[in-house]
Amino acid sequence: MSELLVGDLYRFQDLLNAEEAAVVERVRTFLAAEVVPVANDHWARAEFPYHLIQGFAGLGLAGRKQSNLLSGWLAMEMGHADASMATFFGVHAGLAMGSIETCGSPEQRERWLPAMAGFEKIGAFALTEPTGGSDVAAGLRTTARRDGDHWVLNGQKRWIGNATFADLTVVWARDVADNQVKGFVVGKDTPGFTATKIENKIALRIVQNADITFTECVVPEADRLQNANTFKDTAKILRQTRSGVAWQAVGVMLAAYEIALAYAKEREQFGRPIGSFQLVQDLLVRMLGNVTSSLGMVVRLTQLQDAGEFRDEHSALAKAYTTTRMREVVGWAREILAGNGIVLDYDIGRFVADAEALYSYEGTREINTMIVGRAVTGLSAFV
Amino acid sequence: MSELLVGDLYRFQDLLNAEEAAVVERVRTFLAAEVVPVANDHWARAEFPYHLIQGFAGLGLAGRKQSNLLSGWLAMEMGHADASMATFFGVHAGLAMGSIETCGSPEQRERWLPAMAGFEKIGAFALTEPTGGSDVAAGLRTTARRDGDHWVLNGQKRWIGNATFADLTVVWARDVADNQVKGFVVGKDTPGFTATKIENKIALRIVQNADITFTECVVPEADRLQNANTFKDTAKILRQTRSGVAWQAVGVMLAAYEIALAYAKEREQFGRPIGSFQLVQDLLVRMLGNVTSSLGMVVRLTQLQDAGEFRDEHSALAKAYTTTRMREVVGWAREILAGNGIVLDYDIGRFVADAEALYSYEGTREINTMIVGRAVTGLSAFV
Amino acid sequence: MSELLVGDLYRFQDLLNAEEAAVVERVRTFLAAEVVPVANDHWARAEFPYHLIQGFAGLGLAGRKQSNLLSGWLAMEMGHADASMATFFGVHAGLAMGSIETCGSPEQRERWLPAMAGFEKIGAFALTEPTGGSDVAAGLRTTARRDGDHWVLNGQKRWIGNATFADLTVVWARDVADNQVKGFVVGKDTPGFTATKIENKIALRIVQNADITFTECVVPEADRLQNANTFKDTAKILRQTRSGVAWQAVGVMLAAYEIALAYAKEREQFGRPIGSFQLVQDLLVRMLGNVTSSLGMVVRLTQLQDAGEFRDEHSALAKAYTTTRMREVVGWAREILAGNGIVLDYDIGRFVADAEALYSYEGTREINTMIVGRAVTGLSAFV
Amino acid sequence: MSELLVGDLYRFQDLLNAEEAAVVERVRTFLAAEVVPVANDHWARAEFPYHLIQGFAGLGLAGRKQSNLLSGWLAMEMGHADASMATFFGVHAGLAMGSIETCGSPEQRERWLPAMAGFEKIGAFALTEPTGGSDVAAGLRTTARRDGDHWVLNGQKRWIGNATFADLTVVWARDVADNQVKGFVVGKDTPGFTATKIENKIALRIVQNADITFTECVVPEADRLQNANTFKDTAKILRQTRSGVAWQAVGVMLAAYEIALAYAKEREQFGRPIGSFQLVQDLLVRMLGNVTSSLGMVVRLTQLQDAGEFRDEHSALAKAYTTTRMREVVGWAREILAGNGIVLDYDIGRFVADAEALYSYEGTREINTMIVGRAVTGLSAFV
Repeated sequence: MSELLVGDLYRFQDLLNAEEAAVVERVRTFLAAEVVPVANDHWARAEFPYHLIQGFAGLGLAGRKQSNLLSGWLAMEMGHADASMATFFGVHAGLAMGSIETCGSPEQRERWLPAMAGFEKIGAFALTEPTGGSDVAAGLRTTARRDGDHWVLNGQKRWIGNATFADLTVVWARDVADNQVKGFVVGKDTPGFTATKIENKIALRIVQNADITFTECVVPEADRLQNANTFKDTAKILRQTRSGVAWQAVGVMLAAYEIALAYAKEREQFGRPIGSFQLVQDLLVRMLGNVTSSLGMVVRLTQLQDAGEFRDEHSALAKAYTTTRMREVVGWAREILAGNGIVLDYDIGRFVADAEALYSYEGTREINTMIVGRAVTGLSAFV
Repeated sequence: MSELLVGDLYRFQDLLNAEEAAVVERVRTFLAAEVVPVANDHWARAEFPYHLIQGFAGLGLAGRKQSNLLSGWLAMEMGHADASMATFFGVHAGLAMGSIETCGSPEQRERWLPAMAGFEKIGAFALTEPTGGSDVAAGLRTTARRDGDHWVLNGQKRWIGNATFADLTVVWARDVADNQVKGFVVGKDTPGFTATKIENKIALRIVQNADITFTECVVPEADRLQNANTFKDTAKILRQTRSGVAWQAVGVMLAAYEIALAYAKEREQFGRPIGSFQLVQDLLVRMLGNVTSSLGMVVRLTQLQDAGEFRDEHSALAKAYTTTRMREVVGWAREILAGNGIVLDYDIGRFVADAEALYSYEGTREINTMIVGRAVTGLSAFV
Repeated sequence: MSELLVGDLYRFQDLLNAEEAAVVERVRTFLAAEVVPVANDHWARAEFPYHLIQGFAGLGLAGRKQSNLLSGWLAMEMGHADASMATFFGVHAGLAMGSIETCGSPEQRERWLPAMAGFEKIGAFALTEPTGGSDVAAGLRTTARRDGDHWVLNGQKRWIGNATFADLTVVWARDVADNQVKGFVVGKDTPGFTATKIENKIALRIVQNADITFTECVVPEADRLQNANTFKDTAKILRQTRSGVAWQAVGVMLAAYEIALAYAKEREQFGRPIGSFQLVQDLLVRMLGNVTSSLGMVVRLTQLQDAGEFRDEHSALAKAYTTTRMREVVGWAREILAGNGIVLDYDIGRFVADAEALYSYEGTREINTMIVGRAVTGLSAFV
Repeated sequence: MSELLVGDLYRFQDLLNAEEAAVVERVRTFLAAEVVPVANDHWARAEFPYHLIQGFAGLGLAGRKQSNLLSGWLAMEMGHADASMATFFGVHAGLAMGSIETCGSPEQRERWLPAMAGFEKIGAFALTEPTGGSDVAAGLRTTARRDGDHWVLNGQKRWIGNATFADLTVVWARDVADNQVKGFVVGKDTPGFTATKIENKIALRIVQNADITFTECVVPEADRLQNANTFKDTAKILRQTRSGVAWQAVGVMLAAYEIALAYAKEREQFGRPIGSFQLVQDLLVRMLGNVTSSLGMVVRLTQLQDAGEFRDEHSALAKAYTTTRMREVVGWAREILAGNGIVLDYDIGRFVADAEALYSYEGTREINTMIVGRAVTGLSAFV
């Protein structure tokens, strides 16, 4: 059996069954051996470690049937190693494959999913647009125009993870005929599809986000997701994704706590380890409270998923809450490392920076607050 | 099946089995019918509702064999109704009966527990002293001197809940012979035992706390708890108690959220329910995040208890964390009620005030922080 | 020269000139000798110390021409002694007398102000209504109907400080003819005027707030404030009042800091004053930061007043900011006193409770936020 | 007269006299025209804009006799443009020149200061060591050994700003003979002096910090600062520096507020500028409260300096408080920019990152807390 994570004071890991624990152990070993050692360096250079794709493939995780708890736990383990790689995996195996799984026809699932499960084809997911970060439903401006057996796409997408190199991008566009949002799978070499890397990021620098332009981009009807007929289908996917981000955020907290604790036990001031000072213990214990309560929250979330009780406000609350707590935790951890906390080599800097992206993507705190607020009050505060 | 509590967004209540849910339903009905209607009035007058004791007896909860989850959940339900009555129950059925259960001989358990289970005899628990709020182990100054078949107690206790009217008070004193802390059960009419009500409280005003003075107070050896031989036995009881306070704190949060939500849906400003304003939803959703994550935490705590993995740092973290979150929640709730929030009749005021007591009793945030800090760093920051 | 207040680390008091300092010294002496010793007791009984009115009269402060800095500083000194008495004074000398000064004719000023300056007649100020805590302009429902040489008032007011015993109440009502808000001075024995004390308050318990009902209450035209013709005249008074509350809030913070510091130096745990522990110093220094920065803010506010640059957003920001910081400070102070912090006799409890009223009255944080937000963005977020 | 800074709601700028305002205007123009346009690009590449040194020289600020208010205000203006360049200036003109001014003989001042004032020679300041970030007095390990007319330095320094290219570095070392800390001015080409750039920073990337090693580094007695005889002389300089950092932090806040406000007025969601949403105004107004109160604090600090009342605890409190508030402000600003906030080109990212360095350098929050705590309680909590 795998050891507990340093910050798993309440032994949540014991909730996994033996088989699940074995998967976790395998993934954790891979992350520690392959991902962690290269993360800071690739982050500094804003480059994607393409050589790791085969390793991810070897884990056999994409498209795997498994419990919601295990899925969440693995998102956490990835976030614990590197939030960028967690995002890469989430976009590919969650958003892209999930869209095809949920909205594709049997033929489409068969056509795309096996190669994606083997990471032979990498997926991206294009929903967000430059002018509408979060009000995706109302604001979607990319258009799809039916033209015989084809569709013609026009518009722009922004922030699309993996899209600079993905083989397939799931694109959401508004049908000019019926005003409904429809999904399309677009290959990377399709004429009229241009993906430009977003440079100068200060967070998740390993993730390759793209601005995408569609200019009279022609896609066969066969590549339209046959069962995606309204925005509600997309909402289902987002709900799942937000839950995954909440787990990733817990992973980031765990990593930050671990780094700070190790430093506090090692670093000396006034002739003693700084971990023996009340002001340092104060920060460590606050971190651990955030970690533990957040874990309790996301574990329960997976039980709601199992019970078929999973609603938008559940994932919105978890996403908003855990990422808020995460932001506190990485700040306290950096504080403990003081000056060394701003040098990438001491590890905490990457988590501090990446936390900002997790806090804002897949729905800002504000958007998720209003999703929950509407559910509990019965009153919309969106506009 | 009972309805969910308004703030139980993640349906934690579904974790109870049918029998447990029935107990909860019964207790909740009693609290709503008997306790809530008289709480504000007794609070205002700082008087104990003695007429409710029979009702508590009728619930059959004291000394009941039940799961840790149910015990915690009931502490939460009581906190949700009134934190003072939750404290009354916790002192009697938890601290006092728990001490006798844990540290008494079979004869002593038989002698005292049945009457206490039936609330025919009410218990108190005297550990804290005027000069040592939280460093009880080191600072205990009340002395016990063996004198033949008797012990003679001298010293002072402070903050002793129920003690103005309790029939039996479990008293912890230091044996002058071996310097060990020993436990004694002292009847209310024992000469040399004087309990004086602490007046002018601004929190938990229904709880009758006493300053107790022992002046050559003679107690038979037969009333010394036979299996309490060191302070570690007391620590076991405190560990359990802190877990209970963490659950009570969740109950207080739930009540505050409920009051604020109802008010926000009803109260209008600018011609609309204030619950439709973003600034109000912001507060409501922050509350709900605190409630939900805290619930996740204390639920896991009971699983650690079941698994025999329950350590001091577990309950210390839960106590410090949930009471900190509770303090935020009651403040936000009061903020939503604005001016009306300072009138007792609008209910929130009592919870705001009582939260301060929960935050500080059974170990301040500072003490619990250092208990956790020592466990995770291996370094003591107490002095 | 008077000593510095304990929490005046940055010596703001040195900004007063010698004459102002002498006034402060005189007021401070009175407050310490007469107000502080009776505050807790009257607070507990929710009674007003009528015997102190003569003392206030003797200070010669009401209606005095003085610098804005001195006015603010005195509000702070009163808040430092007792927030209720600061409120009593602010309602009488600020809101009521200020309304007559600003909106009365010369004859009216002459008729009422001298007696009020001498505290022979006490004033109240009736703007807030039961259904409109903060959107006073739009929501004002109390009506005034001209009837020959008289006006007939109908409607309800809520939260009116001093109004249970005030001789004169300045009442704001909407003229049914032109829909404009007009001001009236109503004597306490006027038929149709009924003031009922609000009971069961948990904050500012010394302040006597009333619910007022006007039932065909007849007021002579001569008692209508002759220069109050729109709501903007009221806004001017509120702007000034919010500045005063900001200063009071600083006074409350200073008192709380002082109480906590004294306790921390005296109270021992583990054989040392608790003020020597890092966790306690952390709270003390956070408090002092809040105090000092808030003082810097309100001092600058009075310079804006002197320069004629004083706008609504200035006082709204100060009110919202300092009362928010105050709420933190009183919480930290209470935390340092732990259990003793919930007993009124240890002084901090009264400030903790009263802070809640200051936080919400004269514009909640939400309302003041939107006043500032509108000013800086040019966009209204009220509805 | 120069316009007010966007975030200067309380018109603090009016406190400058005409001549001072003209200096501010000149500096502000330079910063806007020369520094701001190149800041992001150099930050991204972690390179120093050497071409700007002449521009700084032209401003005539280094070594200038001016009011403390103007000095502080200029530090703020620089922080508002770029915290790295503010640091560059502070290290050169404050720490290095200040050390020579304070601790040098008349001959030494004459020898070095004119060239430094003209930026012909750039200075650095080497106090911090790898093993002692903040307990500099006790922990200083770099040694100085007298050897006839020379001194021999051995040891290591860390985090030394400007030191990769500075012509002169003021070095603090412990005299092995009398154990006192002495100061030395070391030229960059001195044998035994090696400065290595610290790579991979995530904050203040434009500042060139070095690890310095002294290996039998020989310095003439004539280059020992003749009036620096104990650590107290260094403390004087640190006190001044912390005040400067507090002002820089206000500058960073002002910039962040300005960026967020501009974005909020421009960026639309749901068909409206996001600045019209309550949740966004909430963040803006919180920022503005932090900015305004912090400004009030540092302005008062300069008055204490003028009055000769300036003590360690004054600057320690300002440094700890304003940098804490700054950290909140940059986080809220980034939150408003959501995804775009993590792209350097939107400006806020640089301030978010740099804030972390300001928060920790020149004394962490913890160290400054204990400096203040000791002053107000009379009790040391350092160990």
